[in-house]
Amino acid sequence: MDKLIIGDVELDNRLFIGTGKFPNKKIIPDVIKSSESKVITMALRRVDLKSKEENILDYIPKDYILLPNTSGARNADEAVRIARLAKAMGCGNWIKIEVISDNKYLLPDNYETIKATETLAKEGFVVLPYMSPDLMAAKNLVNAGAAAVMPLGAPIGTNRGLETKELIRILIDEINLPVIVDAGIGKPSHAAEAMEIGADAVLVNTAIATAGDPINMGKAFNLSVKAGRIAYLSKTAPEKEFAEASSPLTGFLNK
Amino acid sequence: MDKLIIGDVELDNRLFIGTGKFPNKKIIPDVIKSSESKVITMALRRVDLKSKEENILDYIPKDYILLPNTSGARNADEAVRIARLAKAMGCGNWIKIEVISDNKYLLPDNYETIKATETLAKEGFVVLPYMSPDLMAAKNLVNAGAAAVMPLGAPIGTNRGLETKELIRILIDEINLPVIVDAGIGKPSHAAEAMEIGADAVLVNTAIATAGDPINMGKAFNLSVKAGRIAYLSKTAPEKEFAEASSPLTGFLNK
Amino acid sequence: MDKLIIGDVELDNRLFIGTGKFPNKKIIPDVIKSSESKVITMALRRVDLKSKEENILDYIPKDYILLPNTSGARNADEAVRIARLAKAMGCGNWIKIEVISDNKYLLPDNYETIKATETLAKEGFVVLPYMSPDLMAAKNLVNAGAAAVMPLGAPIGTNRGLETKELIRILIDEINLPVIVDAGIGKPSHAAEAMEIGADAVLVNTAIATAGDPINMGKAFNLSVKAGRIAYLSKTAPEKEFAEASSPLTGFLNK
Amino acid sequence: MDKLIIGDVELDNRLFIGTGKFPNKKIIPDVIKSSESKVITMALRRVDLKSKEENILDYIPKDYILLPNTSGARNADEAVRIARLAKAMGCGNWIKIEVISDNKYLLPDNYETIKATETLAKEGFVVLPYMSPDLMAAKNLVNAGAAAVMPLGAPIGTNRGLETKELIRILIDEINLPVIVDAGIGKPSHAAEAMEIGADAVLVNTAIATAGDPINMGKAFNLSVKAGRIAYLSKTAPEKEFAEASSPLTGFLNK
Repeated sequence: MDKLIIGDVELDNRLFIGTGKFPNKKIIPDVIKSSESKVITMALRRVDLKSKEENILDYIPKDYILLPNTSGARNADEAVRIARLAKAMGCGNWIKIEVISDNKYLLPDNYETIKATETLAKEGFVVLPYMSPDLMAAKNLVNAGAAAVMPLGAPIGTNRGLETKELIRILIDEINLPVIVDAGIGKPSHAAEAMEIGADAVLVNTAIATAGDPINMGKAFNLSVKAGRIAYLSKTAPEKEFAEASSPLTGFLNK
Repeated sequence: MDKLIIGDVELDNRLFIGTGKFPNKKIIPDVIKSSESKVITMALRRVDLKSKEENILDYIPKDYILLPNTSGARNADEAVRIARLAKAMGCGNWIKIEVISDNKYLLPDNYETIKATETLAKEGFVVLPYMSPDLMAAKNLVNAGAAAVMPLGAPIGTNRGLETKELIRILIDEINLPVIVDAGIGKPSHAAEAMEIGADAVLVNTAIATAGDPINMGKAFNLSVKAGRIAYLSKTAPEKEFAEASSPLTGFLNK
Repeated sequence: MDKLIIGDVELDNRLFIGTGKFPNKKIIPDVIKSSESKVITMALRRVDLKSKEENILDYIPKDYILLPNTSGARNADEAVRIARLAKAMGCGNWIKIEVISDNKYLLPDNYETIKATETLAKEGFVVLPYMSPDLMAAKNLVNAGAAAVMPLGAPIGTNRGLETKELIRILIDEINLPVIVDAGIGKPSHAAEAMEIGADAVLVNTAIATAGDPINMGKAFNLSVKAGRIAYLSKTAPEKEFAEASSPLTGFLNK
Repeated sequence: MDKLIIGDVELDNRLFIGTGKFPNKKIIPDVIKSSESKVITMALRRVDLKSKEENILDYIPKDYILLPNTSGARNADEAVRIARLAKAMGCGNWIKIEVISDNKYLLPDNYETIKATETLAKEGFVVLPYMSPDLMAAKNLVNAGAAAVMPLGAPIGTNRGLETKELIRILIDEINLPVIVDAGIGKPSHAAEAMEIGADAVLVNTAIATAGDPINMGKAFNLSVKAGRIAYLSKTAPEKEFAEASSPLTGFLNK
């Protein structure tokens, strides 16, 4: 499969995974393995150097890309402070911007996200902003120095799939940065669908963490993301209005 | 992955593929390989022992299960005759019943299909009937001795996906035979979706044969079918109406 | 609006309504009025000449077309017996065939329905068979003498809308009888959608009877059925992939 | 039906219509009549006092609310200038803000739209901003003084319906201003669906103007908007997973 390039890193896997909501953090290393994911996101709050049992970093092997997120930030300033803290704590220079002040649907604030992106990109961060799928906001994120855009498919944790599919399709068509679908993906078929329309990667957390068997679900998502990417590159056959026989239909018995 | 049992055969792959519509038959062996399919369907008409260039059997390796179909049959009698001919020609005792007299949408005739199934099952065939997804017809196919039922997702060759999803879901719920979704599957995400709701296998032809790169598309479908099956076994997380944070949302900066 | 002709009756309203599930039967006359429906279906069981309080006929004004249904019938014979009983009880010669032996999804048995249709059509009934949307079964119903076909949109009482839309669209395209969508319609938008694709009428029961305000909901369905029919006759504008401005986009300020 | 209040005006009709794209402007008065619309939008460019044949105002009766739009504006400043011009030309103090610099999908610029809204609301305009359906942008429009928000259902002129349905549903849930779905509505069923989920009104232009029969299509939309509103007020029945009989199912013949 072709590589995905973000910042100056080449990735050979297009499934990013999250570390929240697992019933048991001890299985996270096995999920990372089964999913073959190379980019692992986590809330900075969970990176707590004092409290041993809560430190999510213990569960992430060293050679993976950490993608700390700014969850808990309600505006650009808070996001910037969390990002700097993450870097200072040794989480590297990738940052996923999440600015959320809506507590019911957890929808991101595009405007504050653009501001935070601009500040952090200038400071050398590789900035991946979580966003509401809006073309003009995505253009502003490009101008602000984002390394990718992360539009939501549906509200966080809902598992409802690509409810914003047509808006995401437009971002894929118009934005010259990787488009990573984040939030809402609940099943492997949703992930395959995102990749088939040309998304560059997907981020999945709830759907894996709360599955009956998270380790095998990680594997299922890995396979479906690969399937969707290969299908995109292999050009899917067009939809037709009327039927077309795969096999010859008539005359068989009359010849 | 768990095995699929049809008749007395155990299958370790749940993607069945067809051999019609390929721009170049010479790539069929590579598609069989890339798809890892073990069951290959073909129209009996293409099994022509006289004309060397048209003989589809030359392109199917010996250790695969042949699933000749009765395409061209317009009623039960014709389907029975084609099935017997297939067996006589050495195609084995699996048969996919297709009885079609509708030339525009190529929709199957459930009633004639039940009759052909009854006759052929008694003769020892492993009968896989292609059908319009109707619960009572499926119950009649069970009674007639079918080895599986093959409901359509959409008309043959349309690539539109699971337009009959809710009817198929009911078959899966109520019928104690393998349910193999046949026709209409146009993208790997459609195949994954069918498997996630509990289909036992899918048959794909047009979507692979007419893809830009059929060999890689065969691989994509193989991965997506596996993804969907694993997801089904691993229990997908439920859909929710409101958002649920994967990461802690508030208080981060105030602690 | 154009008339709908069934049997030798001309109807100026394309919404048929049912009388089951109402919390209070006394509002049925008001619902008939608000919906402007001219064809009223009811289970024969409810037509009980002995028990005054249960007799649904008391709630249906005299000048409406009664469409007794054969609910409770599990095969063709039972349906035929119920139909004859209905006629004998003075319910007229219209009959809606319902043959159901599946107690979970309440899906009709097309094969038994065809048999009952054939018998009753010969006896002079105006036969409206409830059916699973299958093209070949619909063709057989035409041959059996049906006056219309009534494919289901979704299982009875689910209010989920046109889950079988593409199969219904094919019936509309191929069958030269009125197509009346029955079952599954849960909202006025579903009814409008059925009419827009060319259905000739819809039958609605649960969605009106169990609404918060059944009388006003009857009105809402009447309006939406009219809207959908007029739209069908007025030819809806086609869907487009890219945007097209309604208003002039550029140059305004430069002129 | 209940009244819709915008600014200090009470409206008894919830269908707004546009005046672009009509093959023949002379039918506009008849469409206004058939649709019963009370709010008519038009591009200011078409309000040309010099050129008689192009002056759209000639086709709008005096007692209707004009809703001039700022189409052609590429940023907030241009929108503000067009709005002031409209007022100066006698179009009243209602203004629909459209700020669009994307020529392919014609998607609005929420950020510039918020700025224009703020300026114009302070000047006493009744501001109705066309927007990409983003909750936080809608909250900002509320704060900026908008009189309603007008989220798009799909890109302008595509007739594809409520592709952004879930995002619009969230606006309806969270925003304490009228939500008017604008753009993308292609069929009466789409309009009914928007109203059923609680939209306060819809604006339709292309779907009426380019229909086979625009005058009757105006009527169809009027009926469907009413149907959807009444259904919303009457509380639609919930969707169910399994079937529920409307009529008694068993025992009929055994009693």
